Amino acid sequence: MTITITAFERSPDGGKGLARDTRVRWALEEVGQPYEVRLVSFQAMKQPAHLALHPFGQIPTYEEGDLALFETGSIVLHIAQRRAGLLPDDANARARAITWMFAALNTVEPPILELQNAVLLEHDKPWSEVRLPLVKDRVRDRLKQLSARVGDADWLDAGFSAGDLMMVSVLLRLRASGILDEFPSLTAYVARGEARPAYKRAFAAQFAINAGEPPTGSTVPIGR
Amino acid sequence: MTITITAFERSPDGGKGLARDTRVRWALEEVGQPYEVRLVSFQAMKQPAHLALHPFGQIPTYEEGDLALFETGSIVLHIAQRRAGLLPDDANARARAITWMFAALNTVEPPILELQNAVLLEHDKPWSEVRLPLVKDRVRDRLKQLSARVGDADWLDAGFSAGDLMMVSVLLRLRASGILDEFPSLTAYVARGEARPAYKRAFAAQFAINAGEPPTGSTVPIGR
Repeated sequence: MTITITAFERSPDGGKGLARDTRVRWALEEVGQPYEVRLVSFQAMKQPAHLALHPFGQIPTYEEGDLALFETGSIVLHIAQRRAGLLPDDANARARAITWMFAALNTVEPPILELQNAVLLEHDKPWSEVRLPLVKDRVRDRLKQLSARVGDADWLDAGFSAGDLMMVSVLLRLRASGILDEFPSLTAYVARGEARPAYKRAFAAQFAINAGEPPTGSTVPIGR
Repeated sequence: MTITITAFERSPDGGKGLARDTRVRWALEEVGQPYEVRLVSFQAMKQPAHLALHPFGQIPTYEEGDLALFETGSIVLHIAQRRAGLLPDDANARARAITWMFAALNTVEPPILELQNAVLLEHDKPWSEVRLPLVKDRVRDRLKQLSARVGDADWLDAGFSAGDLMMVSVLLRLRASGILDEFPSLTAYVARGEARPAYKRAFAAQFAINAGEPPTGSTVPIGR
C-alpha cells in the first residue's frame, strides 16, 4: 500500500534537515520502505483540507490506505512497530527504546523549542540578549544529564533504535547554537546518527526539494 | 507481578495533581491495575540510585519485574498496550489514539512548559510582565486549533483513550493561568476527564500523600 507523507514546499531551514519530515523519512529509510511525498505550502497548511489531516496545521502527515496520522513521534512509532529495523525484538528492550522516543520529544526537545522561540521570535525584543543565557542553561541542564547517560556508548540502549533516531533528530536542532559542541559524547553520538546511510538518504531527499530539485522518496517516483 | 511507581515525597504543587505521577496513576486506575508507590525526595532524585532509573532525575518511574521505564508518555503507552481500557481494538483507531498522546506531549505541552518557566523561573525578571502575553499567545494558538478539532465531541477520537488521558493531563496545567477558561469546549473536555472515577481515584491517591497521609495505590497496601 502506498505511503504518502507531507513536507514543506519550502522548508524554513532551507534544507538543513531540521523540518520534521526528515525524521519520518529517516525512519522509512531505516526499514527500507518506499514512500511518496506531497509538498504543502505555508498557506495550504492552514486550509481545511490539510487541517483535516493535521489539526495543528503542520507537517509531516502520514497516509497509508485508510489510515491518516499526524505527529512525528506517532508516525515514527507506527513505522517502527510494523516493520523491522527500528525496535529490538525483546519486549523489555522494545519498551525502553520507546521510552527514549518520548524522552527525546517531551524532556529534551521542550527546552530546545524554547531556545528556538527565543532566537526566532524574540530576537528583536529588549530582553533578548540578557535572557538568552538563561534559556541556554536550561538546555545545558538536560544535555548534561543525557551526556552522563550516553557516556561512551554508541547508542542509548544497546543497538540503534527509533529512540536514537528521535534523540539525534532533536539534538541536531542545537547545532547552530554551538551548545552541542560543549558535550563531546553527544557530538559523537549525533555524528554516528548522521553517518547512517538511511539518514543520509533522508537528508538528501529533503535537501533536493529545498535546492529546487523535484521531491523524491527513496525508490519511487513522486506524484503530489 | 508488582508494579511500583515513584512520586514526589512532597509535590511542588502541594497535591493539585499536576505532578506527572498522576498521569500514570490515572492510567493504572483506568485499566484496574493495582500498584505500589515509592516516594522520592528532591535530594534523592539527583542521587545515583534514582538516576539509574531515570537519567533526568525526575518522577515518575515504573518498575515491573525486570522492566524499568521512565518518561510518563512511555509508561502510559506501556500500560495501555498491555491491558484493556485505554486503547481501541481497531488497529487504525489505536494508532490515532497514540497520535493524540504524542500531540499532547510534543505539540500542546511545550508552549505550556514555556509558560510555566516564564511564571516560575522568570517572574522576578525585568521582562517578566511585558513578555508574558507573548508566551500566553503561543499557548492560545495551540488551544484554538485543539478547540476547533474537539468541538462538541466528548473525546478526541471516538471513545476515551490514552490520548485523552494525556491531553486532559496536559491541559490541567493551564487551569491556574485562566487561559483554559477562554475555550469552553476545552473546559468541558477537561471536566469530562476529571469526572472519570479512575481520575478521581488517581487524584485522591496523590492528594493523600501531599496532605500528609500515607501514600496509597488503588487497592494494595504500600510499603516503604
